Amino acid sequence: MNHQPISEDQDATSILQTEVSQAVQQLTEVEGEEQAEVFSEILTEAESGTVAILLESLPLDERYERWQQVEPEERVDVLNLMRADPRLGILKKMPDEELDFLFAQISPEDLIDWSDSLPDSITDRALAQMGERQRKHFELYDQYDENEIGRYADHQMLVLNPDSTVAQGQRFFRRIDLDCNDHLFLVDTNDKYLGTVRRYDLYKADSQALLSTLIWPDSRVISADLSLIEAAEAIEHSRELEFPVVDEHGILIGRMTLRTATALVREHYESQLMATAGMDEDDDLFAPITVGARRRAVWLGINLLTAFLASATIGLFEDVLSQVVALAVLMPIVASMGGIAGSQSLTLMIRGMAMGQISAGNVFSLMKNELGIGALNGTLWAVIIGLIAGWWFNDVIMGLIIGCAILINMAIAAIAGVMVPMLLQKLNQDAALSGSVILTTVTDVVGFFTFLGLATLLYL
Amino acid sequence: MNHQPISEDQDATSILQTEVSQAVQQLTEVEGEEQAEVFSEILTEAESGTVAILLESLPLDERYERWQQVEPEERVDVLNLMRADPRLGILKKMPDEELDFLFAQISPEDLIDWSDSLPDSITDRALAQMGERQRKHFELYDQYDENEIGRYADHQMLVLNPDSTVAQGQRFFRRIDLDCNDHLFLVDTNDKYLGTVRRYDLYKADSQALLSTLIWPDSRVISADLSLIEAAEAIEHSRELEFPVVDEHGILIGRMTLRTATALVREHYESQLMATAGMDEDDDLFAPITVGARRRAVWLGINLLTAFLASATIGLFEDVLSQVVALAVLMPIVASMGGIAGSQSLTLMIRGMAMGQISAGNVFSLMKNELGIGALNGTLWAVIIGLIAGWWFNDVIMGLIIGCAILINMAIAAIAGVMVPMLLQKLNQDAALSGSVILTTVTDVVGFFTFLGLATLLYL
Repeated sequence: MNHQPISEDQDATSILQTEVSQAVQQLTEVEGEEQAEVFSEILTEAESGTVAILLESLPLDERYERWQQVEPEERVDVLNLMRADPRLGILKKMPDEELDFLFAQISPEDLIDWSDSLPDSITDRALAQMGERQRKHFELYDQYDENEIGRYADHQMLVLNPDSTVAQGQRFFRRIDLDCNDHLFLVDTNDKYLGTVRRYDLYKADSQALLSTLIWPDSRVISADLSLIEAAEAIEHSRELEFPVVDEHGILIGRMTLRTATALVREHYESQLMATAGMDEDDDLFAPITVGARRRAVWLGINLLTAFLASATIGLFEDVLSQVVALAVLMPIVASMGGIAGSQSLTLMIRGMAMGQISAGNVFSLMKNELGIGALNGTLWAVIIGLIAGWWFNDVIMGLIIGCAILINMAIAAIAGVMVPMLLQKLNQDAALSGSVILTTVTDVVGFFTFLGLATLLYL
Repeated sequence: MNHQPISEDQDATSILQTEVSQAVQQLTEVEGEEQAEVFSEILTEAESGTVAILLESLPLDERYERWQQVEPEERVDVLNLMRADPRLGILKKMPDEELDFLFAQISPEDLIDWSDSLPDSITDRALAQMGERQRKHFELYDQYDENEIGRYADHQMLVLNPDSTVAQGQRFFRRIDLDCNDHLFLVDTNDKYLGTVRRYDLYKADSQALLSTLIWPDSRVISADLSLIEAAEAIEHSRELEFPVVDEHGILIGRMTLRTATALVREHYESQLMATAGMDEDDDLFAPITVGARRRAVWLGINLLTAFLASATIGLFEDVLSQVVALAVLMPIVASMGGIAGSQSLTLMIRGMAMGQISAGNVFSLMKNELGIGALNGTLWAVIIGLIAGWWFNDVIMGLIIGCAILINMAIAAIAGVMVPMLLQKLNQDAALSGSVILTTVTDVVGFFTFLGLATLLYL
């Protein structure tokens, strides 16, 4: 009997970060033959998820060498658990006969998931290996785009017609061991969804009763065109383990489980975190240098445009800069404090918008609150920075100028922190992605303009 | 029969963002009496989660007025689903007799959750309302700190002794309808955990068999001192709906479910996202201005120190700045491009570290890869920016200087993007929280130093 506790100190059999870290360490501190031996030992024990993480943590050449040690029967599972980019890298290197063997085992659900990032030629090759029924499933899901839950519905579910008996329903649950499964879905002969029967109700009913008499009145369904994160939240906040997914004609096309919801929530936040640096959650830790450079170049280019805007603002004040060089020394402080204050308001707004808590009705109150916080902190830091700057350059005017500029920039930052995400939402843009670039541009330009503008008034 | 599809277009009964947004809008566009009416209408239909989100989206005075409309029996549920700060704000305003009524209904699990942010006086008041057995539960959980899963274990679970029969086990599942429940836990008379029986196995066994004969050999337990996010990942990546949680003596203290795991994953990422702006996931959308200002001031102060470092670096080069004012105009571009490039490397590292994929063995390969990407993008942008700057100021030397500085800063940014999070991890610091401040300081200082330093060499 094995009920090893899962804890950091002990040897557990689950995907724990500490456990993965150890395996990564063992694997990466050796090379060549020795690495092959360590990996084959890990392979005998580790779950597919661990193998996937390990492969991702190897540089590209080593990764493909170790990949060849993975048993052909386990390869679909491992690839399923890898990110899109590393997976694609491996698929592109595999010889055709190995690909064909792989695709002979793949399910339509897996292929849908992979196909989001696969070149059409590879997807077609996989489809050619599939049976007629599987291909139909693939096409059913493929109608929905990458952000719609219908695309990722699970077609393994318990389905019966309403004239089946409770005994038949019970037999289903006894025979079939699905993850996150405590409902039976009832459909008519055209697969139209009729209702849900809970397992809990099934065991208390008369075994000859018809399932149609047990339809659960509170059951809910998810529309196939609902967005991934909304579908995930719907199930996360319910008390159910699974929801039926139906298309616009009411046809049952699959189910969505709490486990899938957890993965979707994780992916959603991961992509938000990566987006703050203009990156993608599918990005490979070891992307080929040219691929990595090309992807990141876009974000750097956008940043350059905004940086030139800031420079152009400074350029307006060359006269005063050439006379009072201390301004050049101090000006980054004004921009930086405004940027930080603005990003605090922005972060609060983005979270509130993600929860649906921001609306035209309360945005004015929010603005008032943020402006209050900005004014309070602005005054505090204006005084502190003003005193330091005045003492540093032995110049009271300089202290006054920077203090005023800090106060003004932090107040504007609070307003921009509220308004920029609101505007982006109006324009249907993702505030988490582009909010901070726009905001920093505003605080840079305003910061440089007020600071150098005040200096021009007072020094020239 | 009600199986309304959950979709954006329709009126659903779940917590959907679109649905919440609509309610927020209805509620915030009116005031006073009218708002009270709208809210009482919403209260008759909405789930506690929606009510919690709605209350959070109101300014403080309106929030407490609406709170008084919530039925006393529903108040614990609503407060459970609010963030810590808004919850505390409401609890502090409630009169003693209402508090006592509230605490008479609270479970030890709820109180543990609240107590993380509650003043001791309020926690003690709540404990005084609890029965002896409940208080014991509270003390059991309270041994574990805020990052240990033992603190948040759920004591509602199915527990039997190993001499019970299969029939008794089946009866448990028929009678008790718990969320995420498909296991029975077996304990001895001292509550020592002995093993797990799966519901799936129960329905195929002889009804007179002893449960001890059905113990599932692959069952796993979670140590009560495991961190929240690791416990969440363990269950997320398993095929189970629940894990037993045991203390260091092997005593069963509760269970942890997939639904809890989903919430923990969400909280983990939310706190990471908020941390990027030096904020906290418990922060209230409408914090009192002084509280909000004080919390944010810390992060602004840290930023100010790093900004002064950058200023001091610029201060070293006053001579060249006073002679070539174009340097002041262009210098933010050098710092900014380095900052963005560095944050891209940093973001990739932070994600890799969260997955346990970074180790001493592969950090050198990673560095090589990042440096390669940095060099490639550095060269590209050095040429572009050099040409633009040379043309703008009609000065070839200026173009050369800024090009070199960009290239050097982006290469250093790649190295710092890899090394800063590694160092922070060594020092047991959270790279997601402090990584970007330190990194930006490095790229600012290096950027200003190389740019102005090269200018001093070539112009003076």
